[in-house]
Amino acid sequence: MLDRDYENQVCSIARSLEVVGERWSLLIVRNVGLGLNRFEPLRENLGITRSVLTTRLNTLIEYGILEKRQYSERPPRFEYHLTAKGRDLAPVLLQLMWWGDRYYPEENGAPSIATHGGCGGLLDHHLICEKCGEKVEPSDIKVKPGPGRKTEDLPKIPA
Amino acid sequence: MLDRDYENQVCSIARSLEVVGERWSLLIVRNVGLGLNRFEPLRENLGITRSVLTTRLNTLIEYGILEKRQYSERPPRFEYHLTAKGRDLAPVLLQLMWWGDRYYPEENGAPSIATHGGCGGLLDHHLICEKCGEKVEPSDIKVKPGPGRKTEDLPKIPA
Repeated sequence: MLDRDYENQVCSIARSLEVVGERWSLLIVRNVGLGLNRFEPLRENLGITRSVLTTRLNTLIEYGILEKRQYSERPPRFEYHLTAKGRDLAPVLLQLMWWGDRYYPEENGAPSIATHGGCGGLLDHHLICEKCGEKVEPSDIKVKPGPGRKTEDLPKIPA
Repeated sequence: MLDRDYENQVCSIARSLEVVGERWSLLIVRNVGLGLNRFEPLRENLGITRSVLTTRLNTLIEYGILEKRQYSERPPRFEYHLTAKGRDLAPVLLQLMWWGDRYYPEENGAPSIATHGGCGGLLDHHLICEKCGEKVEPSDIKVKPGPGRKTEDLPKIPA
């Protein structure tokens, strides 16, 4: 599973990066998590070739981060969904997002905000709901458009 | 700062990955954060060429994540240290580490554990100290060897 560069690295960061340490992979996980589940919209959003996207999707399926679900029989068509392992990458993505919000801010504010699915409160950077105080788990995080969002640029987030 | 692939992406994740979305960069940040501050030990630990390491170090300095400090005048020699911006990547690295601990576990347990510098307690996955209950900030996180650590494989963590 680990390529030769990592053979001598007993480190969970090195192992994780072997799986998702390539920017398209994490952006695909982001997009699928936001509800962009089909090939062509994913490809258009990322602006990458069909071949690169196919390779990355297959790798993410092989690693158990995404799963394929058939949504049409004729013609056969598939959607991509996050597995529990994929959803558990949410804290990584949120910490990356907050770091970017802090050091590469948008003029109009954060493009996305993280909220608690349960009560709708905002999450602080410890993934704790500012409204109800709950320690929020990855499956209960809901990302919503923030003030800096330009809707044409990003996947439409289901309301 | 963003290359053309990202021009149409108003997203803090995409922006952050533009800066650190390449596995060597995050592993360099990890190593420097663990106290491996000099070129040759860094290069040996990562098993990469001088040229790749030089390029990545210069990029990380350019982005303000690392800074160079002279530690010897004759011959002129430099160390690399994390800036505050670099230290603020700690939550990203810890979430990646915990994801790897969960899905790619070592037989003997986690190679590294995260603790609260202030009181020495273990951090939970919300970056809260299990001993004193404090919400721990990046500058107060201390990573220590865990039960799965093979000391010969990783940078020596200063005690």
